[in-house]
Amino acid sequence: MACGGESILIKDGERIVLMSENGDEFITVVKNGEKFVTHLGGVEFEKIMNADFGDFVETSKGEKLYILKPSIVEEILNLKRKTQIVYPKDLGYILLKLDIKPGDRVIDVGIGSGVVSYAIARIVGKEGKVYAYDRREDFIEQAKENLKNWGVYDVVEIKCKDLSEGVDEQDVDAFFLDVPKPWLYIDKVWKALKGGGRFATVVPTTNQVQEILATLQDSGFTKIEVVENLFRFYKPNPHRLRPYDRMVAHTTYMIFGVKINKK
Amino acid sequence: MACGGESILIKDGERIVLMSENGDEFITVVKNGEKFVTHLGGVEFEKIMNADFGDFVETSKGEKLYILKPSIVEEILNLKRKTQIVYPKDLGYILLKLDIKPGDRVIDVGIGSGVVSYAIARIVGKEGKVYAYDRREDFIEQAKENLKNWGVYDVVEIKCKDLSEGVDEQDVDAFFLDVPKPWLYIDKVWKALKGGGRFATVVPTTNQVQEILATLQDSGFTKIEVVENLFRFYKPNPHRLRPYDRMVAHTTYMIFGVKINKK
Amino acid sequence: MACGGESILIKDGERIVLMSENGDEFITVVKNGEKFVTHLGGVEFEKIMNADFGDFVETSKGEKLYILKPSIVEEILNLKRKTQIVYPKDLGYILLKLDIKPGDRVIDVGIGSGVVSYAIARIVGKEGKVYAYDRREDFIEQAKENLKNWGVYDVVEIKCKDLSEGVDEQDVDAFFLDVPKPWLYIDKVWKALKGGGRFATVVPTTNQVQEILATLQDSGFTKIEVVENLFRFYKPNPHRLRPYDRMVAHTTYMIFGVKINKK
Amino acid sequence: MACGGESILIKDGERIVLMSENGDEFITVVKNGEKFVTHLGGVEFEKIMNADFGDFVETSKGEKLYILKPSIVEEILNLKRKTQIVYPKDLGYILLKLDIKPGDRVIDVGIGSGVVSYAIARIVGKEGKVYAYDRREDFIEQAKENLKNWGVYDVVEIKCKDLSEGVDEQDVDAFFLDVPKPWLYIDKVWKALKGGGRFATVVPTTNQVQEILATLQDSGFTKIEVVENLFRFYKPNPHRLRPYDRMVAHTTYMIFGVKINKK
Repeated sequence: MACGGESILIKDGERIVLMSENGDEFITVVKNGEKFVTHLGGVEFEKIMNADFGDFVETSKGEKLYILKPSIVEEILNLKRKTQIVYPKDLGYILLKLDIKPGDRVIDVGIGSGVVSYAIARIVGKEGKVYAYDRREDFIEQAKENLKNWGVYDVVEIKCKDLSEGVDEQDVDAFFLDVPKPWLYIDKVWKALKGGGRFATVVPTTNQVQEILATLQDSGFTKIEVVENLFRFYKPNPHRLRPYDRMVAHTTYMIFGVKINKK
Repeated sequence: MACGGESILIKDGERIVLMSENGDEFITVVKNGEKFVTHLGGVEFEKIMNADFGDFVETSKGEKLYILKPSIVEEILNLKRKTQIVYPKDLGYILLKLDIKPGDRVIDVGIGSGVVSYAIARIVGKEGKVYAYDRREDFIEQAKENLKNWGVYDVVEIKCKDLSEGVDEQDVDAFFLDVPKPWLYIDKVWKALKGGGRFATVVPTTNQVQEILATLQDSGFTKIEVVENLFRFYKPNPHRLRPYDRMVAHTTYMIFGVKINKK
Repeated sequence: MACGGESILIKDGERIVLMSENGDEFITVVKNGEKFVTHLGGVEFEKIMNADFGDFVETSKGEKLYILKPSIVEEILNLKRKTQIVYPKDLGYILLKLDIKPGDRVIDVGIGSGVVSYAIARIVGKEGKVYAYDRREDFIEQAKENLKNWGVYDVVEIKCKDLSEGVDEQDVDAFFLDVPKPWLYIDKVWKALKGGGRFATVVPTTNQVQEILATLQDSGFTKIEVVENLFRFYKPNPHRLRPYDRMVAHTTYMIFGVKINKK
Repeated sequence: MACGGESILIKDGERIVLMSENGDEFITVVKNGEKFVTHLGGVEFEKIMNADFGDFVETSKGEKLYILKPSIVEEILNLKRKTQIVYPKDLGYILLKLDIKPGDRVIDVGIGSGVVSYAIARIVGKEGKVYAYDRREDFIEQAKENLKNWGVYDVVEIKCKDLSEGVDEQDVDAFFLDVPKPWLYIDKVWKALKGGGRFATVVPTTNQVQEILATLQDSGFTKIEVVENLFRFYKPNPHRLRPYDRMVAHTTYMIFGVKINKK
């Protein structure tokens, strides 16, 4: 909590999330001298800079807005997206299965809104590198802006290129493939990975899973795993604990493999 | 693939996983001059050092063993454990919800086998720190050995102390609490976290979830979330795609919160 | 299909369901000389009587309406309900667990909209009997009307009575209990059931499940079973098979027991 | 409870289930003068006939065996089966979706162990009829024996015939199809059903679901529904309520449709 006037924590230009008491979230950037305005009322950014993370400020309409540093989950769920995203429930497991760690060199195709590149880049750090491909310029522009906002732009090398032309890198540690027909590019994934390198892809339909499995069988991969997960959220009422009435039934099937050297 | 004799990749003293064609996994350390022996037969480590990651070696019984670098998932699933572990399916999401990133300072209580400390330490890196507590010496000894094997021992500061005495740190970014009665320590979690800091705990029963929720309500946390996930693995047969007959029905409920400054 | 003019199948006064091509369903009763009207346009009942089950009729707006006999699932899902209902996904299993068969005498408390009484009455038939209780007159009136529409009114004996006063029957084969605090009435259930009689209750929260289990433990029941089920519907597209995006996450927990004679 | 000596309930020749305190179940037939023997010890049937349903008898080893009338769920789960069965969790929903009611005429192919025919026969009663087909004599013999034991043999007409030859009945109310390649017989199902008649089939793999959907599309069916369900059982401990560690992940996909007259 700020004591003695101006906070030393919340700076001009800092990325913050403002959260109302009923859970509305607004991700914004502190602009000293300006005002943040929503349907819940307005609030001077100066007032925010005089507060601390974890404090709330009151809007002109008397609504409380809590000031938080945006977590990666909040960034993902608040994206204005043109593309299908990888949800946190799936992303967390993918990062572990790809064994992403500092210094890793990783390929991400297609980049989409940049969520997966962000998550990977944050971990591999400056000694590592993410090579992100997409064939659509508009997605790349959006992803670039997002990655700049998220502070990992220098870790990600972005290329506008169709995967049918192959990738430029070799001996990468991991390869994440999120395209409509991943089975067409399994050989390119294999060539790019180092021995023992980790592969993940995601598809929404069983037909696609079948195509991928048929291709993976004789393509130099082991530890082939197909999995889906069902996240069920509960109403946080200690006296009437029960799941929410409805849930997401399906986002994607995840398919994993590990490169072996002889096919 | 190794070309021209000795591999430059697999070194004496390196930690590897050997995987048989039917999926048995053995995590071991390369010991030049010695032999690796299982029920699948034996193989000289020298032979392994002459191979490369992604290659296989043949045992004395003619079984193929693929050589891989152990991923964090493989390390977790192959643990000889005395304690209940946090499974990859849950761990991935927890890391995202706690917003673990390079440089973070994080508390992990109790350390158990060290799995969560490992996963966090790998991400926060040397500019960050994990403060891991446990009240049982035997768990701490096991965790220390594991963390050394996993190469993150210097990032984790381990303390043998009961949480009822409180923790020594303040303004930490995140707090992971894995003890039988987490509701007894919510105030200590609150004190240790910085404003906006992220909290996660795991418990197996609904009775415990209810106790935690009752305590969290007026304890200075927002964004309280209770969730469980169901992972369903599929047989990777493209011609007969279907889930395996049986699955894990339950590991834990996960409860999350974010510290706000005024209770 | 009707051949040779007037159908012998669809009669004046018959209960039918009309289903549009996009799945809207309207349950109604054939009224010769009148017209059925919805937002999809109108159609003369005479036209319907000249068709057959499985045929479609066209409305004044050119919409096709298929004529079907309403199944029990359609009746349940199209209820205009004041009360929480037992959904088909749960009801089917409950009927099997209660081992409902022709000739059985079964108690149903509270009757709610009458769905469970209907499902049971249909099976026990005229040699059996359903004793249905509720303490609310308005529910009973609604249930009576529904049971008449469904043609099982003579199999169900309805009583307006609070369960705290006990039930009038003994040696019943099965007891279905759907009230907010079922644990208060376990002794009354036990007294009403015959030895080996089957008991089922449903509650939405874990707190309630805990209360019931605590009571059942020493109350003369065996084979105590707690179960929930998750129904997942798939989009019926053979080329893009996948679950619908969202699903019902929770309706109820089901708890079952079998009466033993000595507590 | 038996009062005054000999029970009037448990008769010589009656089918009973004996259940031990740890949940072992033995379905048997009372044979006066003989003895029931298992690894839990022996007990004279005479002793059982002197007891009542809901009582227990003690074996020679001092184990308690509760005497119950076998429910349909117990019959199914205790089957010594040669064939894949339809589990209660799926069967209950199928019976509702097929709208089985007294007097219905229903086709069941293939009969397998007779479980589905039993469940349907019990409801349609003597005014209805189940026509059950199988092409394997051994299955039919087993099913006959089961249906006799279950007391519904006279309601089921069993035929040894391959479905490729068609069925003999027309205008049936419902058709349950449980064969490896159901898509080959959709036209035969359509011909046998009356307008508005209900169809259900079950298959374990997504590939099969796709085949069925591709066939159903233009074959004269509406209300096509694909669904799976996940049953999760909880440990019935009120102080530590939680799901069992493991569960059945998959039994079958269920596909439903309703016949319309014009394709």
